[in-house]
Amino acid sequence: MIVVMSQGASREQIDAVLRKIEEFGLQTHPIYGVQKTVIGVIGDDKTKVVETMAGYPGVEQIIPILKPYKFASRETHPQDTVIDISGVKIGGDKLAVMAGPCAVESRDQIINSARLVKLAGGSILRGGAYKPRTSPYSFQGLGEEGLALLAEAREETGLPVVTEITDARKMDLFCAYADVIQVGARNMQNFVLLTEIGRSGHPVLLKRGPSAKIEDLLLAAEYIIKEGNRNIILCERGISTFETHTRNTLDLSAVAALKKLSHLPVVVDPSHAVGISSLIPAMSLAAVAAGADGLIIEIHPNPNTALCDGPQSLDFETFTSLMTRIRKVAQAIGREA
Amino acid sequence: MIVVMSQGASREQIDAVLRKIEEFGLQTHPIYGVQKTVIGVIGDDKTKVVETMAGYPGVEQIIPILKPYKFASRETHPQDTVIDISGVKIGGDKLAVMAGPCAVESRDQIINSARLVKLAGGSILRGGAYKPRTSPYSFQGLGEEGLALLAEAREETGLPVVTEITDARKMDLFCAYADVIQVGARNMQNFVLLTEIGRSGHPVLLKRGPSAKIEDLLLAAEYIIKEGNRNIILCERGISTFETHTRNTLDLSAVAALKKLSHLPVVVDPSHAVGISSLIPAMSLAAVAAGADGLIIEIHPNPNTALCDGPQSLDFETFTSLMTRIRKVAQAIGREA
Amino acid sequence: MIVVMSQGASREQIDAVLRKIEEFGLQTHPIYGVQKTVIGVIGDDKTKVVETMAGYPGVEQIIPILKPYKFASRETHPQDTVIDISGVKIGGDKLAVMAGPCAVESRDQIINSARLVKLAGGSILRGGAYKPRTSPYSFQGLGEEGLALLAEAREETGLPVVTEITDARKMDLFCAYADVIQVGARNMQNFVLLTEIGRSGHPVLLKRGPSAKIEDLLLAAEYIIKEGNRNIILCERGISTFETHTRNTLDLSAVAALKKLSHLPVVVDPSHAVGISSLIPAMSLAAVAAGADGLIIEIHPNPNTALCDGPQSLDFETFTSLMTRIRKVAQAIGREA
Amino acid sequence: MIVVMSQGASREQIDAVLRKIEEFGLQTHPIYGVQKTVIGVIGDDKTKVVETMAGYPGVEQIIPILKPYKFASRETHPQDTVIDISGVKIGGDKLAVMAGPCAVESRDQIINSARLVKLAGGSILRGGAYKPRTSPYSFQGLGEEGLALLAEAREETGLPVVTEITDARKMDLFCAYADVIQVGARNMQNFVLLTEIGRSGHPVLLKRGPSAKIEDLLLAAEYIIKEGNRNIILCERGISTFETHTRNTLDLSAVAALKKLSHLPVVVDPSHAVGISSLIPAMSLAAVAAGADGLIIEIHPNPNTALCDGPQSLDFETFTSLMTRIRKVAQAIGREA
Repeated sequence: MIVVMSQGASREQIDAVLRKIEEFGLQTHPIYGVQKTVIGVIGDDKTKVVETMAGYPGVEQIIPILKPYKFASRETHPQDTVIDISGVKIGGDKLAVMAGPCAVESRDQIINSARLVKLAGGSILRGGAYKPRTSPYSFQGLGEEGLALLAEAREETGLPVVTEITDARKMDLFCAYADVIQVGARNMQNFVLLTEIGRSGHPVLLKRGPSAKIEDLLLAAEYIIKEGNRNIILCERGISTFETHTRNTLDLSAVAALKKLSHLPVVVDPSHAVGISSLIPAMSLAAVAAGADGLIIEIHPNPNTALCDGPQSLDFETFTSLMTRIRKVAQAIGREA
Repeated sequence: MIVVMSQGASREQIDAVLRKIEEFGLQTHPIYGVQKTVIGVIGDDKTKVVETMAGYPGVEQIIPILKPYKFASRETHPQDTVIDISGVKIGGDKLAVMAGPCAVESRDQIINSARLVKLAGGSILRGGAYKPRTSPYSFQGLGEEGLALLAEAREETGLPVVTEITDARKMDLFCAYADVIQVGARNMQNFVLLTEIGRSGHPVLLKRGPSAKIEDLLLAAEYIIKEGNRNIILCERGISTFETHTRNTLDLSAVAALKKLSHLPVVVDPSHAVGISSLIPAMSLAAVAAGADGLIIEIHPNPNTALCDGPQSLDFETFTSLMTRIRKVAQAIGREA
Repeated sequence: MIVVMSQGASREQIDAVLRKIEEFGLQTHPIYGVQKTVIGVIGDDKTKVVETMAGYPGVEQIIPILKPYKFASRETHPQDTVIDISGVKIGGDKLAVMAGPCAVESRDQIINSARLVKLAGGSILRGGAYKPRTSPYSFQGLGEEGLALLAEAREETGLPVVTEITDARKMDLFCAYADVIQVGARNMQNFVLLTEIGRSGHPVLLKRGPSAKIEDLLLAAEYIIKEGNRNIILCERGISTFETHTRNTLDLSAVAALKKLSHLPVVVDPSHAVGISSLIPAMSLAAVAAGADGLIIEIHPNPNTALCDGPQSLDFETFTSLMTRIRKVAQAIGREA
Repeated sequence: MIVVMSQGASREQIDAVLRKIEEFGLQTHPIYGVQKTVIGVIGDDKTKVVETMAGYPGVEQIIPILKPYKFASRETHPQDTVIDISGVKIGGDKLAVMAGPCAVESRDQIINSARLVKLAGGSILRGGAYKPRTSPYSFQGLGEEGLALLAEAREETGLPVVTEITDARKMDLFCAYADVIQVGARNMQNFVLLTEIGRSGHPVLLKRGPSAKIEDLLLAAEYIIKEGNRNIILCERGISTFETHTRNTLDLSAVAALKKLSHLPVVVDPSHAVGISSLIPAMSLAAVAAGADGLIIEIHPNPNTALCDGPQSLDFETFTSLMTRIRKVAQAIGREA
């Protein structure tokens, strides 16, 4: 790390900083410039040292040089991590398409959806049983009944299921029903939940929060991986910006960046990012071209009766035709789909 | 609510929309324009109707006219809500200053802090026992021991305490120790936690999330109030923007806006918003002038040894002198402090 | 347009609003709800009426229903506009790749670049002669000499050239030298410049400003088109957000949205958006898959000696290999390249 | 400056970087860490060196240590700059309130406004003659006639006038009519205009662009000051964020930060920032408490007939009462008003 002393820092302040850093067992290399002194520090950028030194008198800025996450970093684990979800691989050559309704609404709806996903070539079924909603007056999901219906749909079609958890107290239930446990954008920094998932070892789809930097997402993954669970799928789903035409702004550069910074697989959720069904096919193809390892797309047998997210759900016909186009783009960049 | 049909919407689509809305028991007023048809709907803007109609074919946009939150709204409760925290009023004429360290670190540190807060004229002691941190390698707090030390500091000084909860499973513990339970910015949309707090009836300080719109914050409050708990203090603490000089961007317009839209008291946390101790006094005074009902400020007996947030903590001398200036500005706008 | 009256609006206020709107020759349809009155207005959403009524007592909100731009809108011009730049078509089936250095630095540099662009299959040469730079101490370009060198490179290779204007007083010079005049992101709302370009009829590449909404970009185009110049190429180049890993956030949803809202061609500048050369190939492919009509990419014979934007410039080898991949993705979505 | 080499950088790459920096006449201090090498560089952080080195192979990041602006910096000019506008001081003990209509509409309107501003205790008259508007269909101002009317209002009342320039070709006209030339947010990076104003030596009010960082604003000021013109008033007027309740987000922390980083006076425009007249009084008081040297506020004799910005204009009564409150807050923080 680099410690930048402020222009007016006294010799005593500089010396106190040097002494303190050396107490932590680290080597210091002060460079006395004309206007400012900077101190190079050799050794691990321990969070504790960074945080301690930041408050020292005369310190203007601490610049960490090493990444604050370790296990999630490609520097410590150069090969791609490939996650096996009941036989479906995520992070390898083959693109994984997860699809299904926003919320499980009924047996018919979820089973029909699952059949269509399978028919069109999707590999995982998505569907919410516990729905976190901005308004307490919106539909909140069927709860445990929804989980049971997802399990039925899996038996019927053989597709593994991914569904969102919102409460750490329900971990056992989710481990019993879900193949992949989703942590939604609102819970990306629910560290209690991340730690429990880390301990469970269960595969997890971790969505980027709407105001989370790329580094924050990797630190959230670090909470899970540090407990021994490497089965993490990162998910870009749009960030909060000033643009109001789309619900959020899909940040596809984050996909390319995450693939460089981390070994974990990255998928994209174009549905929640843009929130307008007519833009979703184009964004799905763009995500594949950007290098995403998969997609998670909302579809509904009848979007205009959906209990949530109707305007951003694709109907079956659109989804089937999109799958054909996804395969072509995947092949164009040397992937299967 | 207003339904805007797209330019190419057919007569059949318009009629289907009219029929569906009327099925919900609402009155429709179609206005057939030259280019587009819009439908005025009389009756409550029920979330269910809004969400259902948004997915209908031919519908371009649904514009709700009424506020999506009800109990938190000043329209339904015109008088200011004043919350009583063991005798300290929040939301009335008198400004409430909450202060204390980021984290409880030791008996000495918290008791000294509490004494200083009292001496300088602050009315509530803050301090974290369970700290949610972006990195798993940062100091995470003393846990239950921290809560016990806060209670000791309260006994010693008579100051009520506010401290952050991160896990719904610890509700009983927090109700036992804390006078005000804080929901941090990262948990503003942890609806499981909000619902539990709503049921407990316990006073709560609800921080705005870094990507939460003003309306999102009021909907989060609605989750609590809908369960019967009106003891909610809203807190502005900065939002995520492109500016990197400060940690977040303190949105003081939100204070003025919240006071108009809602009857709930609003306090400001300048410490987390700007993250630089030298800017905190100016932002504290600005918050008071903007109409905030209180402040929550990080102080530390020795900022350069703080285990967290050292660079944004005020030392005792600065805090004491700030309190004098706060009182003057409060008086200038007709408030006590 | 819809006028929403505030909850407490009096009958007199409502009547005054109705009378004023009718004075403008528009038809009103008041809908008296239980809590609020809304007024539907039939007829053109004239900017003047919208702006006048917004200030009336009792008016809470004006909601325009029609788009504020007209000539730029696909509603008034359903077919794609195809622009012919000395034989190179932009907006048709064939993808257009513009490439070249950030700034013209010397005859050798620009002529070598032009040859490479041609060899790799690019169709337009880019290069800055007048460079707007955030710092007055950065290299500001060769000025008119740079324009002359671009013209030489065009003669040598037959490639049309695109270059940025920063001063309305230099219009004649740019019309003489450039095939396409670029309006940079910082000048997107330099209305004096837009009007002059509108009058010139010269082809223009209009970049989206870093805080411009999609609608703002289309209104900037409207300034040009309203003067009679339809030769406008829109360009997405990243927006300002809280993410700091990339220079800006490339908003590829805007590409899909612009293609729906407008008939004008849309190209993408991944170089300025992300600012890191290793991410540019992935973002170029993603832009093509998202439906962009072209790309504008920074390349340099020797990025590590570039006088500007070295870190985001591709070397020739990378660019050539990228062109091959671009062609494959273009074919996968049914386009030529 | 600090050069951070990437983890895999070779010894040859490191040596090439060291040699190149030394060619620039700078001293290098390489620190060979376990994972990465960083190079401390002593000497001025010349923009040219920073930009050159950023493109070198093996370089991961360049971290400038010194500020990129010089003349605008408080480090080089510790005392506050006080600007004299025909006897009105900006930047000293006394707060300066500039007020007036968004646009000059007629002789009566501007002369009445000027009288009221004077009567209420304001010290400078604002009013637009050339209005940059997002839509080409909005009122664009009276042009030169507007400037002449402003001059009449000045003669009538003795108040100096501030008005916005949008075209560098009109510099002479503005120097003749205006006491302070305003550069609007959209032109903050119109470097051609900034340079002309720099050469004119005329007092200038420089507004922060909606996506400009604090550093970008200071670099824009540097364009002016570098030409020899120190008469610069910085103006915070809101930045682009995801919040839609207010037009922009007023960033009052920027006021406190600018006062620390620079010696130039800073004023605040709450009217354009929030865009809602009912929030403007609170934000005006907050700006004063935050340490602003002045305010620029939109008022109108009859907001509901204003040709622009009616919804954010204060009527005379509100403005007069606000002036009384402003004086009280100014006194509370030890300033006159």
